[in-house]
This record gives sequence, C-alpha cells and structure tokens, in this order.
Amino acid sequence: MTGREHGAALEPTGDTPVVILVRPQLPDNIGACARAMANGGLFHLRLVAPREGWPQPKAWRNSSGAHRILDELTVHATVAEAVAGLHRVFATCPRPRHIIKPILTARGAAAELREIASRDLRAGILFGPERAGLDNDDMAHADALVRYPLNPAFMSLNLAQAVMVMAYEWWMADEPSPPRSFMTNETRVATKAELENFLTHLVDQLDASGFLRNAEKRPGMVRNIRHFFQRGEVTEQELRTLHGVVTELAVGRRRRGRLEQDDEA
Amino acid sequence: MTGREHGAALEPTGDTPVVILVRPQLPDNIGACARAMANGGLFHLRLVAPREGWPQPKAWRNSSGAHRILDELTVHATVAEAVAGLHRVFATCPRPRHIIKPILTARGAAAELREIASRDLRAGILFGPERAGLDNDDMAHADALVRYPLNPAFMSLNLAQAVMVMAYEWWMADEPSPPRSFMTNETRVATKAELENFLTHLVDQLDASGFLRNAEKRPGMVRNIRHFFQRGEVTEQELRTLHGVVTELAVGRRRRGRLEQDDEA
Repeated sequence: MTGREHGAALEPTGDTPVVILVRPQLPDNIGACARAMANGGLFHLRLVAPREGWPQPKAWRNSSGAHRILDELTVHATVAEAVAGLHRVFATCPRPRHIIKPILTARGAAAELREIASRDLRAGILFGPERAGLDNDDMAHADALVRYPLNPAFMSLNLAQAVMVMAYEWWMADEPSPPRSFMTNETRVATKAELENFLTHLVDQLDASGFLRNAEKRPGMVRNIRHFFQRGEVTEQELRTLHGVVTELAVGRRRRGRLEQDDEA
Repeated sequence: MTGREHGAALEPTGDTPVVILVRPQLPDNIGACARAMANGGLFHLRLVAPREGWPQPKAWRNSSGAHRILDELTVHATVAEAVAGLHRVFATCPRPRHIIKPILTARGAAAELREIASRDLRAGILFGPERAGLDNDDMAHADALVRYPLNPAFMSLNLAQAVMVMAYEWWMADEPSPPRSFMTNETRVATKAELENFLTHLVDQLDASGFLRNAEKRPGMVRNIRHFFQRGEVTEQELRTLHGVVTELAVGRRRRGRLEQDDEA
C-alpha cells in the first residue's frame, strides 16, 4: 500500500497540531513518525532531548519522503520549552496511573484538536520515548491525556503507529468521504429502465431456450431472476456486458443446435 | 508508547476478519502486521506467495510478541485459494482505477465487517505488496474496495500502518469508551457542596487578608473567583489540596505579620 507520491507537495500548515516526541530513542522512528504525520496532514514536529542527538540522516532515509517535516522541526531541551508557545497540550499515555486528568480517546482528542484549531489556538500532542513512555513530570504539562482504545491483551504500540493513529483521526475529524460510495468515474449506476430492458432480453432468450417452459413455475422463476439482478447497484457498463453474455450464450446454443441437426442429417 | 504486555494473552478469535497479505516482500513487515493486528484484536493471518518464503525468523523478531498470530498463519499459492473459505472479501486499494466496485472508507469497512461477523459469516481483507499494491486480478476477488481517507499530498502508507488503521477501526467499531472521560479511580469529582465549602474557606481568608476590602467591588470579585473554580470538574482530592494551599498561605501571611510586628517592636 505504498505509492510513488512523495513529500514534494507537503506544505507547512498553519494551525495544525504540533507533534512533540519526548526523548525519542531511535532516529528511524523519528523518520517513521514524520511519514505518519504526513499521511494525516500534520506538519509541525518538535523533539525534546532526542537520545542520539539531531540531525540524524537515518531519520530522513526512513521518512519515505516526508523530508520537509524533518527539515523544519525544532529541538528543545525540556518539555516546558517545547510547549511554551502552545495553548493546549495533550499527552498520549497508554496506562495512566496516579494521575487526575481528563482522558480522551484518539477520536475524542481529534475532535477537540479541530475545535481548538478553529479558534486559532495552537495545540500540541506529547508522545513518550519508545520503551518507557511519558513520565509523570511530562504529563503534568498536559491539559488532558489521550488513551487509545486498543486490545487490552496486547497494548504494545510502536511509536510511529501511535502517531499514525492520532494523525489518521485528525484527518478523519474533517473528512467528508461517506463510509460507502461507488466508483462511478468511468460508468454510472444503471437506471431501472436499463435494467428492465436487460431483464426482458434475458427472459426472452430463456423462453426461446425452453428454460421457462413450465408455465406453472415460470412466474416464480422470473421473479427469482429479477431479485438476483436487483441486488446491489448494477452499472450501465455491466449491463452492456450482461447483454453480450446472454446473446452469445443464445447464439452458441443455436449454433450447437445446428451442428447437432447436421450430425443427425 | 510500548509496554511490557506481550502476546501471552492472545487468543484465537472465532469470527474476526482474516488479514490476507498478498505477495508480501519483507518478513519484517509481516511481523509488524501481526503486531498491528494484535493491537486491534485481529488474529487470523494468511499469506499469499510471500516473496522470501515462509517461515522467516525475522517476522517473529519484529512482531513484538504477537507470536501466536505468526505461529498459526497459513500460506497460500493464490488469492483464490486464500479467500476460498470466506463469505465476503474487501481489498485495500489507495488509488482504484478502471474498477467498478463499491468503495468503503476504513471506518465504513469496519462497520460492515462487524455486521458480517454478527451474522456468523467470515470476511477477509486483502493488502497488496509493499511497492506495487494489489493488481487488478487480485481486486477482482473482492466484493468492495477499501480506500483510506488520508492526505492526498502524501499517500505513501507503510504496509503495517495500513493494517494498523484497519485493525484500529475494527476495534473502534465495537468500543464503548466515551470520547472524553475522567480519571476517577483514585478520587472522584467533587460535589457542589464540597466546592462551596472550599469557596467559603477561601473567601473568609480573603476577607481576613483585606483582599476584598473594597465593599463595592467585593461581589464581582467573589463572582470571578467562583467562575474560575467552577470551570471544569474539580476533584475531591484537588479540593483538599486547595484547602491546604489557602490555609498555608493565610498562616504564612499571619506568621510574616507577626515577624513584622516583632521587627517593629
């Protein structure tokens, strides 16, 4: 599920939330986080005390082209410095203990982040180091905690996956795509008249073939066939193919019929 | 955001959707996909013609403990063979072209997968190889396509990230957590009577200190203080801390007052 699109079109976005990686350990993961941010339309990245220092070429190599995010990130000595210019701070935290704060799901946080951005306020989201997560002092800088609902039997979530889920929810919180749509850029859903035209063609050929010769069963059989073709949306293109299929099968039958007559003759 | 929980508690789940990786290239990615599946409560994995063969120790090493998913996966020669026992098949596809099929978002697909599972039918989701994605013949096996709404300026999505988003949406489609809640396992939200008790304490001390000595401004000032403490949910524990803060500040003031008197004496 990769593609050839790369980061050329990545533009700084004014008021999108800032992702703050606190004491990240591996440059590879910083690159993977940048890539996940780009997927979800986030741009602003801050690092607090990255373990291996900064910059690190590995991060660029592992970002799949999200270079601008890495080019423009800022590095800070403390969480306090990284959040100083922000108005609201969330902290991701898989298992909060001994902390009294509002808890948001990723989806709940995304909705609040959109609301904050709509008021021209700037928000940030803290992500902890790979092994230990955020400590209590880090979390004291946050207005609310974000805890992803995930399988309690397997909570171990990679840092880039954690950023991915948050970036994805940020994007989805303003996404107009309907949950189900239909690919109609090259054809369109057939009208009922077009469908009826096909059904008439089919039933005519089935009458000709003798398939519907039992007069008592015929209405039920025709109704079953109609039910089948009414199920789901048939496209105009598919109906043209189906017309062809019926015609060819009928022609084939007549051709075989002629051949059999020839054999008998 | 990792943790110490590992796959010990991973149990086969009867009717959860099957993840089918078609011609996956890197064993590392197969391991990362198993981890993402575990995060979202998916268990059943099938591989179609993995490029480097199977089994591959790297996959286990990169699965962060999701070993049972890898132990129990099955390998198939073709997509047709991998989907043979299923009732419904979805195919992830970032940029469908020349294909006429229903298109679902990941969230839309998750809702349909839950509905399918509730009818005791088995569904599968096809994910294509890392570079090229699914080809048209692969997608012809699917009832519907799944296209994630993501930043069109940066669609490049890692295979494990693609599985993560789908597994996450599967989990969220049956997740009861409210979008915002409150950490109350160690305390509880204060009652209005408790808050009123604190406000009385505070205003008494402010009266004693002379802070509210302007009789004309006093009602407005008290109201402003009340508004501040009414904002958001205050916990019972926080109120106890605030009582202590007010008492200490007042005691400190009186102590200083006495020291100043001593100095004057």
